[in-house]
Amino acid sequence: MAEPPKDTAVPVNPALAPGSTVPAESSKAAAEAAGEGDAAPSKKGAKKAEAKAKKEAEKLRKQQEREAAAAASSSAAAEDLAKDNYGDVQYTTQIAAPLTHLRDLGDGHVGATVRVRAWIQNARMQGAKMAFVELREEGNWTVQGVVAATSAAPGAKGEGEVSKQMVKWIGGLKLESFVVVEASVQKPLEPVKSCRVSGLELHLTRVYLVAAAPEMLGLGLGPASRAVGSLAEEESVEEKAQALSITEGTPIASLATHLSNPAMHKRAPVSQAIADIRIAVEDLFCDFLRQNRFKKFHPPSLIGAASEGGANVFRLPYFGEEAYLAQSPQFYKQFEIAGGRKRVYCVGPVFRAENSNTPRHMTEFIGLDLEMEIEEHYHEVLHMLERVFLYIFNGLTTHYRSEIELVRSVYPSDEFLLPEPGKEVRLTFAEGQALLRSEGPAEFANVTDDDDMSTAQEKALGALVRKKFHTDFYVLDKFPIDARPFYAMPDPENPKVTNAYDFMMRGQEILSGGQRLHLPSELEATIRSKGLDPTQPGLKEYVDVFKSVGVPPHGGGGIGLDRVVAWYLNLPSVHLVCDYPRTPKRLSP
Amino acid sequence: MAEPPKDTAVPVNPALAPGSTVPAESSKAAAEAAGEGDAAPSKKGAKKAEAKAKKEAEKLRKQQEREAAAAASSSAAAEDLAKDNYGDVQYTTQIAAPLTHLRDLGDGHVGATVRVRAWIQNARMQGAKMAFVELREEGNWTVQGVVAATSAAPGAKGEGEVSKQMVKWIGGLKLESFVVVEASVQKPLEPVKSCRVSGLELHLTRVYLVAAAPEMLGLGLGPASRAVGSLAEEESVEEKAQALSITEGTPIASLATHLSNPAMHKRAPVSQAIADIRIAVEDLFCDFLRQNRFKKFHPPSLIGAASEGGANVFRLPYFGEEAYLAQSPQFYKQFEIAGGRKRVYCVGPVFRAENSNTPRHMTEFIGLDLEMEIEEHYHEVLHMLERVFLYIFNGLTTHYRSEIELVRSVYPSDEFLLPEPGKEVRLTFAEGQALLRSEGPAEFANVTDDDDMSTAQEKALGALVRKKFHTDFYVLDKFPIDARPFYAMPDPENPKVTNAYDFMMRGQEILSGGQRLHLPSELEATIRSKGLDPTQPGLKEYVDVFKSVGVPPHGGGGIGLDRVVAWYLNLPSVHLVCDYPRTPKRLSP
Repeated sequence: MAEPPKDTAVPVNPALAPGSTVPAESSKAAAEAAGEGDAAPSKKGAKKAEAKAKKEAEKLRKQQEREAAAAASSSAAAEDLAKDNYGDVQYTTQIAAPLTHLRDLGDGHVGATVRVRAWIQNARMQGAKMAFVELREEGNWTVQGVVAATSAAPGAKGEGEVSKQMVKWIGGLKLESFVVVEASVQKPLEPVKSCRVSGLELHLTRVYLVAAAPEMLGLGLGPASRAVGSLAEEESVEEKAQALSITEGTPIASLATHLSNPAMHKRAPVSQAIADIRIAVEDLFCDFLRQNRFKKFHPPSLIGAASEGGANVFRLPYFGEEAYLAQSPQFYKQFEIAGGRKRVYCVGPVFRAENSNTPRHMTEFIGLDLEMEIEEHYHEVLHMLERVFLYIFNGLTTHYRSEIELVRSVYPSDEFLLPEPGKEVRLTFAEGQALLRSEGPAEFANVTDDDDMSTAQEKALGALVRKKFHTDFYVLDKFPIDARPFYAMPDPENPKVTNAYDFMMRGQEILSGGQRLHLPSELEATIRSKGLDPTQPGLKEYVDVFKSVGVPPHGGGGIGLDRVVAWYLNLPSVHLVCDYPRTPKRLSP
Repeated sequence: MAEPPKDTAVPVNPALAPGSTVPAESSKAAAEAAGEGDAAPSKKGAKKAEAKAKKEAEKLRKQQEREAAAAASSSAAAEDLAKDNYGDVQYTTQIAAPLTHLRDLGDGHVGATVRVRAWIQNARMQGAKMAFVELREEGNWTVQGVVAATSAAPGAKGEGEVSKQMVKWIGGLKLESFVVVEASVQKPLEPVKSCRVSGLELHLTRVYLVAAAPEMLGLGLGPASRAVGSLAEEESVEEKAQALSITEGTPIASLATHLSNPAMHKRAPVSQAIADIRIAVEDLFCDFLRQNRFKKFHPPSLIGAASEGGANVFRLPYFGEEAYLAQSPQFYKQFEIAGGRKRVYCVGPVFRAENSNTPRHMTEFIGLDLEMEIEEHYHEVLHMLERVFLYIFNGLTTHYRSEIELVRSVYPSDEFLLPEPGKEVRLTFAEGQALLRSEGPAEFANVTDDDDMSTAQEKALGALVRKKFHTDFYVLDKFPIDARPFYAMPDPENPKVTNAYDFMMRGQEILSGGQRLHLPSELEATIRSKGLDPTQPGLKEYVDVFKSVGVPPHGGGGIGLDRVVAWYLNLPSVHLVCDYPRTPKRLSP
């Protein structure tokens, strides 16, 4: 299970916290600079705060420089008795104290000496003899570290010694460097509110730099932890400049800047929460299906023909022939059913060579797919898919509440409404269109039952369904035959519609599926009726499988993993969900 | 959990079993024809048996034809009172009895009427009034069905009626058709040894054909259930002919024939057992890592540059630019560590544009990859990987014993030897070479510590290790620097070798991994020392991530899923493990 952050607000560059054992004269300015307690400021407010913060931060920086210079000159002549207690290391850390994770720190540790490995989330001098750092571990665990120069050598050979040079070196550590420290665990006078581990602080006795961050981050943790600004694929010069001016406020960076700074984008607590929720969706999908006797398999990505129509398919040279990247595992799921499996699922990348530059599209995405035998009626599949979704949604609200809240503190959204058990909402396509005509916006007063829905129609219908049925999740069944691919099974009672459905989340399609044709003669006829040739490469091999054995009736559906997460959390782009989104304009990192 | 077959021998076209309520006059011939009890015959033996079986089968077929013709002529004039109790159906099955899976059938069902959906594994007439079928469900569950013409109408409107026409129609059902039947569950006089459900048989009262198989299968269940013959990519005319002559013995089909007949290849119990073991390996890998706080992610398949060297990489046009298919998730695993994850893993396809036509190679395969922070020493990673493998192996022997035995009945292999707990075998590369020099074959008397091992050396060393240490699983550590990629961390105490290792199974490499360089300066230096340019596309973005933040020391490894299964079961080809193997010569189905 993921480690939930304790606070919904994301502490960013909080400098000295009020509860520290030492008075924090400039904590207010620093907190304001970081926009603390103001998770999603208006653009205007942000700019104002930014200007003020910049001024204060500049003042602070100059003061620190003066102090540091003074400290350096006064100690330059003195021997550094602490020289073995800090500095760069590479392979070993030279600390014998037990390694302790911040998530495990508790009152039982008070007085103990521990070893901690962490990132420098913040570091600053307090006068010439004292420095404060904020240390962070995976899962947004943070703790305050304090170090003060000792007046006399407490042990032999500099052991336990903290020199002014050492304090200065610690106070000057670059943000997002990786360090290993030895420290005594102590209780602060007041809780350190800026840190997740607020009831303890670390009195640092040794600090070693394992990997240094650069002087200037390409994207600071502050903007990385905020909602993205522009969703444009390429960042403007202005946006780039904004993202660079990190520590002094300026909390908004464009999506492009986020994606071009993957390490910092991913280090933001909100990114880790989204990633954790994404993993959960996949795991819950697989768990449920395993429990229901589905067998996993892996369809190929490389295929010999553009099987589901030639448009929008990537093609590549392949040992003197041509290969294509699979647009879906559809045919292969069906081959598995033909191969004697009753129920199968798969998780893997699918590819679309579509020049769509929208927050909904990617050229490569992870598909969650299933296919199963139908025993009596294709609604067996529809109901199974409903159960899959409800299992996922219930799993999220039960076990990922804190991650969801953390994401909402950055990207506000309404609670995702679910139908009451046994009251799942299933409309036919015709019923949906009728609802749009009678109660929807005027522009949809003349929609017909034969044409596919537009995205705008889908969203309008989603809003109507939310109002009428109090759910953000429902099913549209019996799509018109012209809106479905050739392998869709027509409704035996009404050949104008199919035994095929879409599943909707917040008014957007999240799953497409249905019953498939399983008799080769009918497949060939439908392929021809769609103007295709059942003997063309790709289609021939597909139909041949149904000719080669008797294949039972079956159906299924496919889900886009990133979309489930994005629609559920109401995020502005699927590119915020995918680990490494691919678009027509982005192949890197 | 998978459903284990009860018998290790695979019953194939067994015709009438000795324990049936009716004497089975030709069961011996049929059993011989199917090569029953002779799982892996020599080629010579197989040919002899084949000739004999063909003769017998031909005799049997002619006799059946005579009987059927006689039955048809005698009943042609009579009205078929049972006409509603059999025939083709498509959408509904018209049977109200409760659907029952063969795996759930027990003595409690005796006397009950059930509905069963299954494949016709065998069907034959017994005289003109009786037919026997063998029904199969997923997981190699089989049961015998019997039907006999009733002499008088037992119910109104033909209910319960079985006509001679109906019996003839059932006896003539094509193998591998899909049917739904209504039947009364009965105890046979003696167990039906040829079926997994041997203690019960089904007295058929209705039989409907849901999906018909063709007159002649491209690959019969018999040869599909046997070890493949030739591993050649393309089948010879002779092999094709062999595979076609299905019901009459001829048990060996080439790998190419198997793969070109995916439905029948996959229906074979041995294929399903291999697939089940493959899923188990993947699931056990993921389970163990989840338990150990690893986080899953999905690396992209499409990348902007041939990052790990330009050879053997697929390239494709990408919206006016060029894209490549990832050869490994290596860089992306490291980006995740840079992005603040302590431990990550991924499962997904990787691509090699290598023109290698061997049973070990594929152009696309599923990689199981992990990467983790190193706290003190890279052996933390090595030990974690050892634990992953041992968890997988122990999971297989504990929960998949029957699947393993089923596979062994077709592809014989020695038990896979594991080290005793705490006695894992870890040799340095130099120790391995020394062992080869001192105790290996004469040809390896002069191997050096600086050159990589050949496959032949690996196998010879594997044999030596098995003899000396009684294990088929061991680790070779500290590979020479010239045998590793640029991102490998040199041993700080001996720059000629690296902190990198291979894991071996039955003398074949199954995992490559090690500690990676985490400081950008060292990365750039090593890239240059390998004759590469750290500013070239792909490498620049890689190094930039390490410049952008401080990245802790880390290491990991990558495993080929299909190879784990193939080496563990000692299969002759990874193409028998992969669901849809891709080779330079195969992109289909």
